[in-house]
Amino acid sequence: MIAAIAPDLHTLRPTTARDAIEIVDQTRLPHAYATVRLASATGAARAIRMMQVRGAPLIGATAAYGLALALNADASDSALADAHAMLLAARPTAVNLRWALDRVRAKVAPLEPALRANGAWDEADAIAAEDVKANRALGEHGLKLIEALAASGRRPVHILTHCNAGALATLGWGTATAPIYLAHAARIPVHVWVSETRPRLQGARLTAWELSKHGVPHTLVVDAAGAPLMRQRRVDLVLVGADRVTRNGDVCNKIGTYEKALAARDNDVPIYAAVPDSTFDWTLASGDEVPIEERDPDEVLRPMWGEAIAPAKTAVANPAFDVTPGRLLTGLITERGICAAEGAALAALFPEQKR
Amino acid sequence: MIAAIAPDLHTLRPTTARDAIEIVDQTRLPHAYATVRLASATGAARAIRMMQVRGAPLIGATAAYGLALALNADASDSALADAHAMLLAARPTAVNLRWALDRVRAKVAPLEPALRANGAWDEADAIAAEDVKANRALGEHGLKLIEALAASGRRPVHILTHCNAGALATLGWGTATAPIYLAHAARIPVHVWVSETRPRLQGARLTAWELSKHGVPHTLVVDAAGAPLMRQRRVDLVLVGADRVTRNGDVCNKIGTYEKALAARDNDVPIYAAVPDSTFDWTLASGDEVPIEERDPDEVLRPMWGEAIAPAKTAVANPAFDVTPGRLLTGLITERGICAAEGAALAALFPEQKR
Repeated sequence: MIAAIAPDLHTLRPTTARDAIEIVDQTRLPHAYATVRLASATGAARAIRMMQVRGAPLIGATAAYGLALALNADASDSALADAHAMLLAARPTAVNLRWALDRVRAKVAPLEPALRANGAWDEADAIAAEDVKANRALGEHGLKLIEALAASGRRPVHILTHCNAGALATLGWGTATAPIYLAHAARIPVHVWVSETRPRLQGARLTAWELSKHGVPHTLVVDAAGAPLMRQRRVDLVLVGADRVTRNGDVCNKIGTYEKALAARDNDVPIYAAVPDSTFDWTLASGDEVPIEERDPDEVLRPMWGEAIAPAKTAVANPAFDVTPGRLLTGLITERGICAAEGAALAALFPEQKR
Repeated sequence: MIAAIAPDLHTLRPTTARDAIEIVDQTRLPHAYATVRLASATGAARAIRMMQVRGAPLIGATAAYGLALALNADASDSALADAHAMLLAARPTAVNLRWALDRVRAKVAPLEPALRANGAWDEADAIAAEDVKANRALGEHGLKLIEALAASGRRPVHILTHCNAGALATLGWGTATAPIYLAHAARIPVHVWVSETRPRLQGARLTAWELSKHGVPHTLVVDAAGAPLMRQRRVDLVLVGADRVTRNGDVCNKIGTYEKALAARDNDVPIYAAVPDSTFDWTLASGDEVPIEERDPDEVLRPMWGEAIAPAKTAVANPAFDVTPGRLLTGLITERGICAAEGAALAALFPEQKR
């Protein structure tokens, strides 16, 4: 089931010897499909930082295995603390990273050192298995939205997505893409507008790639095309993922999500973020508190690491994420069902998080 | 005065012998500054189609000279009609193209063939000179907006612009950039957020280049960054150009303008389009009637003509422009002053266009 999308796709596969994980190097897609073996926590942290693995759920799982790898080498309290801190620093915005690391640490800290590595591998395996299950739940809830649109005569149902909240971002069917794959499997005609997602082009490189592997019809557009497509009534539904969702329903996601939500609102197009439980940050009151990662200017200056697009020495700002206020979203697709992107609705759906 | 921006920049220069025009090949910027000699109407049409010259005002002037070049070779009625049609087909969206061609044709059609070529050169020269004058007028009206922001304590005044509505798009100081250059010359501290403008990257390649030539502080960002920058109160003013403005104040401009306007509205950031008289299309009631140019998929697939960003055979849509409803704009900066982007205000400012 981890090999959700195609026989040859495993975004992350632990060795049976529990001495390494094998990942797909996503920086090489779409032109090469290559796997990389990570046998240490530092290797896992580097893979996260370099975006060989990316996508909030996959980052979380990779970090969990990274902590297990650290404990293989040294299961002392200080090694545990050091590896936790190093992996946590790899990327700041996706909350799944902290969630997974905290979860593994909480599981193994009470154990005597000799048992910690195996305990960590067990917990990482559980995180991976739960992600597959979460994808499936999100997919089934989201499928109902697509079914309703198809029933109302939208054939194909035109769905716009941004970045890659797909199988490549997870251990299973993806978050935003899970409803699409389920609809496609159910023979509901769908067509996906793929927003290229500058600067790192995850839409073009990853989403277009995985949709083509699945045979889902799709069309690539520049990020700015989403809004006019909505204005022209050529989009029936917008589905995106999330890197962190705060208590009030604000969604921090790949830069470009906010403007998609503004366009959806202006044109009455329904827009949902698909959010596994691990992506909620119940400690933050609003999206304004989320740390926004500022990345290397070369990501902007050199698309595909090619020729520079601007004169040498041009100053660049490269914030990787933005915050979409919950008020702009039609709702959140959660593992428990669909709800409004606002505090009271989330509190009702997740009563155990009451503060 | 045509050499507005830097001693070595002449976007378009007719020869004194009236047998050719010399243009800057803008497809080679920012890495090479090369001029190209165009000695025929077909050469001018090709330069427009390939975007060696681009920007609504510069397209118009180039087409005007192109018609003069056609008449150099053959001044018959049929040659005039053929050259007009060929140049008009070079690009469909910017109305300046038709405006300039119609103007030259109207001037020379009544003349006997022997006088037509010189008449066309005179008219093209007049169009070029008027564009410089229009830039100056737009600049002075827009400067007042920047002065007011600076007076209210915004120092520097942070201005976001999209695409290139700069000196490179015109014969003079640009449309959206004219107020910026005038403010900079008046020692008002300004800082420009340059939106890269996928797919052809005119913001990164052209606007960043000309701002750096002028010494105007600026920072390059991806297109999707405009909205979160506005949400973070890091933009004081948005200035864009236009390819066509309809009677009701709708603005057709480079794709990405609409979403900038949505973000400006959501964050109460003032946004203006700078529009010379030649860019109004009084024949169209609304932006929905403007033909939107669909360009080569390779522009999307191969940034800077480098490596493909998506798998081979990926379907691509590449609309080059979008329509921003006038309701989303704070106003239009016209040669006659600033006015609301709606029909009644435009009718009051341009009473001679009453229909």
